[in-house]
Amino acid sequence: MSKVASITKVTDVRVPQVGTPASMRELNQRIVLTRLRSGGAATRPQLAKDTGLSKPTVGQALLELEQSRLVRTIGRTSAGLGRSAILYESNPSAGHVMGIDIGRARIRVAVADLAGTVVARIDEPNRCATARALVKTVNQLANKTVREAGLDLEDMVAKVVGSPGVPDPRGRILHYAPNLPDWGRKGLLDELEAALGVGLVVENDANLAAVGEHARGAAKGASSFVCVVIGTGIGMGIVLDGRLYRGAHGAAGEVGYLPFGWSSDENGSGTKKTPSARGLMEAAAAGDSVLKLAKSENLRDAQSALDVFVMARNGNERARRIVTEEAARLAYLVASVSAVLDPELVVLSGGIGKSADLLAGPMDKALRGLTPLVPRIVASELGEDAVLTGAISIGLRSAEDIVFDRRNEAVAD
Amino acid sequence: MSKVASITKVTDVRVPQVGTPASMRELNQRIVLTRLRSGGAATRPQLAKDTGLSKPTVGQALLELEQSRLVRTIGRTSAGLGRSAILYESNPSAGHVMGIDIGRARIRVAVADLAGTVVARIDEPNRCATARALVKTVNQLANKTVREAGLDLEDMVAKVVGSPGVPDPRGRILHYAPNLPDWGRKGLLDELEAALGVGLVVENDANLAAVGEHARGAAKGASSFVCVVIGTGIGMGIVLDGRLYRGAHGAAGEVGYLPFGWSSDENGSGTKKTPSARGLMEAAAAGDSVLKLAKSENLRDAQSALDVFVMARNGNERARRIVTEEAARLAYLVASVSAVLDPELVVLSGGIGKSADLLAGPMDKALRGLTPLVPRIVASELGEDAVLTGAISIGLRSAEDIVFDRRNEAVAD
Repeated sequence: MSKVASITKVTDVRVPQVGTPASMRELNQRIVLTRLRSGGAATRPQLAKDTGLSKPTVGQALLELEQSRLVRTIGRTSAGLGRSAILYESNPSAGHVMGIDIGRARIRVAVADLAGTVVARIDEPNRCATARALVKTVNQLANKTVREAGLDLEDMVAKVVGSPGVPDPRGRILHYAPNLPDWGRKGLLDELEAALGVGLVVENDANLAAVGEHARGAAKGASSFVCVVIGTGIGMGIVLDGRLYRGAHGAAGEVGYLPFGWSSDENGSGTKKTPSARGLMEAAAAGDSVLKLAKSENLRDAQSALDVFVMARNGNERARRIVTEEAARLAYLVASVSAVLDPELVVLSGGIGKSADLLAGPMDKALRGLTPLVPRIVASELGEDAVLTGAISIGLRSAEDIVFDRRNEAVAD
Repeated sequence: MSKVASITKVTDVRVPQVGTPASMRELNQRIVLTRLRSGGAATRPQLAKDTGLSKPTVGQALLELEQSRLVRTIGRTSAGLGRSAILYESNPSAGHVMGIDIGRARIRVAVADLAGTVVARIDEPNRCATARALVKTVNQLANKTVREAGLDLEDMVAKVVGSPGVPDPRGRILHYAPNLPDWGRKGLLDELEAALGVGLVVENDANLAAVGEHARGAAKGASSFVCVVIGTGIGMGIVLDGRLYRGAHGAAGEVGYLPFGWSSDENGSGTKKTPSARGLMEAAAAGDSVLKLAKSENLRDAQSALDVFVMARNGNERARRIVTEEAARLAYLVASVSAVLDPELVVLSGGIGKSADLLAGPMDKALRGLTPLVPRIVASELGEDAVLTGAISIGLRSAEDIVFDRRNEAVAD
C-alpha cells in the first residue's frame, strides 16, 4: 500500500521530547487545534468542556496558537444571559496546498487553504507535444496559480500531482501512460520535482478521482467502491474499507488493460489480439472509440466524443445508437470489475463518464444481460474537479501536521 | 467485511471483571498460554523472562492451566550445568475444530486439534442428487469423522463449512451455487445448522482455499494475492493486505461471472449473450468445457477433464491443444483480475488448477499477448486440502479463546 511516489518527505516532522513542560504545552495546543479543526469555532469554556483541559490551560494554548497564527478570533458569542465570550477558529490561511491534474486534454492547478477552500485555480488546454514542454507548462501554470493567490511556490505545504499512469518511485518513472507524449521517459519524476520543488507527491489520476469523490462527491460515506474514469484513456480508482487500494505494484484499477473480446483459432493457440501500449478495453471504450463509432455511423458533425453525447441528448438517433454501444462496452468493464471486487458503488467520471445520465440506463440493461452481479452506478458529483479535489484532499492530510510543526518551530526560535 | 455467515455465535465469550484478583489470575493465565502457543514449549524461568511476570505468578498460572488441562508437561530440560527444569506446552487436545468441504464432486471432513494437527479425516464422492440428501450426507460424514477421532459433534469448538456460493446470513440462503442441486433453496443455512449443530460458520469455498494457501500453502508470506479455483465451477478467494476480502455483498471473487467474449450487433444493442445461472467465464473454462473441447477434438478416451490432462502429460497432441486452449481462456481470466487488483501472486487450485504444471507456461504466453500486467502464477501447494485447511485455520482463530473461557468457567464452577 506504500506505492505512492512520495518523491521527498515534505519535511521532517519534529517530534517533541516527551514529559518536558514544552512538550506538554505543545500537546495541549495540538488538542485544542484538533478540536477547532474538527468541531468548528468555539469559545474558551466550550473548548475546556470538549477537551477535558482546564480553562487556564486552554487559555494558554489559545494564546500561543494565536501567536503562531494557527488560530484566530472571529468575534464574540451573543449570549442572552451571562457574559459574551470570544469565538476562536482554526486559521485556514495558516497554510496552503496545491493540487495539479495533468490530463491529455487539459491541465488544471488549484491552491487551497487548510479548510480546503480553493483560493486560486487555473484550467488550460494541454497543447504540449513533448514531455519536456509539458513539464515546463506545468511549472508555468503552477507559478501562475500561486501568484494569483498572492503566494509563492515555496509557500505550498504540500503539492500533489495527479497523472495517468503508475508512478514507480524506485525507477523514478511513470508506467502505463501511453496517452501523454513520452510520459514514460526515464527520470520524469525528477523532472517534475525540479519543476515544482521538493515536497511533491505523484499519484495516479483515477486514484485521486476516487479519493475526491469519497471526500466530497458521489461516494461520501461509501466503504468499498470504485471510480471509473473514461476520457482520453480509461482508469479506475479503488477504495476498499475506506482506504485507497493500489495493488502490489501500484497498478490496481488499470482497467484500460482489461481483456475485451475473444478470438480463439482452431489450433487452440488462444487469442489473436496483438498487445500494444494501450490496453484492449481502452482501445474499445475510450474517447476515440466513440469517434470511430461516429464515423461508422456517418455522423459527420461529430468532431469529438462529447459532440456525440450532445447530439444524442438532442435526440439524434444515430448518436443514440453509438451511446448504447458505448454503454454496452462499459457494461462489459463494470461486469468484469463486479465479478472481481463486488463494489457497493460504481462512480462514472471523466469526459465520457460525465454523460452518466445517458449511459447508466443502457449500461444497467446490458449488465443484466451479462451477469447477476449488478452494482449501483452513479454519476460523479465533482465532474472535472474530481482529480483536483482528491489531490487537495491528500495534500491536506499531511499539511495540518506540517504547518503546526513549522509554526511552532518558528515561534520557538 | 462482515459478510461471513456466522450462523450463531459460537458461544458468548465471558469477559472477566477488570481489577478483581480473579480477573488478574485469568489475565496472567492468558499471557502464559499465549506465550506457550506462539513460542512453543518452555520452562517456568523462560516463561517469566518472556512474559515479564514473576516466577511465582507464572508458577500459579501454570498450576491453574494444568488443572483446566489447557497446559501439560512434556518432560524436563536436560541442562548441562544447573538444575533441569520442567517443560510445559499448550495442550493441543484441549479442544478440536471441524472443517467441511462440500464440493460438487467430493465431500471432505476433517477434525483437527488446537495445534492444527488433523486427527481424523474423511473424503467421499458426492453422489447426492438433492439438497436434502446432501445435508443428510454431510451430517453422517461429520458424525463418522468425529467418532473416528474418539469425539462427539458437541466436542467441536468451532465448525467451518466451505461451500460454493455466497452465504447470505440475513436471507439464510446461499447465492450463486448453481453446481450443487437446489443449493440456493430457502432456509438451507438453517438446515445445515440443524444437521451440524450450533456454532456453525459457512464460508465460500474459494475464500477458504485462499485462507488455507495463505496459512500453510503457496501464498505463505504474501500480502495481496488471489487463489483461483477451477474445477466443476470457477471461484476465487482474495487476500488483500493479509486479510480476506469479501466485497460489499460477499460476492468478491465470483469470477465465474466474468464476461467472456463479445458480440455487438450492427444496431449497437450490445452483447447477444443470454444470462444464465452459470457465469460466462465458468461456462467457458470450468471442467465440462474441457470435456467439450475433448469432444470437438474427437478425444474419445477422455471421460473427464482430468483424463485430458493425463493424456496431455503423456504427450497426446490433441490433448495438448486442448490444454493450450484452456490455458488461453484462463489467461483471459487472470488478465481481467490483474487489471483490477494487481495481485502479487496468483495461486491455481481446484481439479483443473492442480495441473498448473501444464497450464502455467501457455497461460503466461497468452497473458503476454493480452496485457502488460502479468502476475506470477504458481500451483497450489495444498491441492485438494486447500478448502479444509482454510476451514480449520478459521476455526482455530476463534477456538483458542473459546476453549480458554469454557475451561476456566468449568474450573470456576
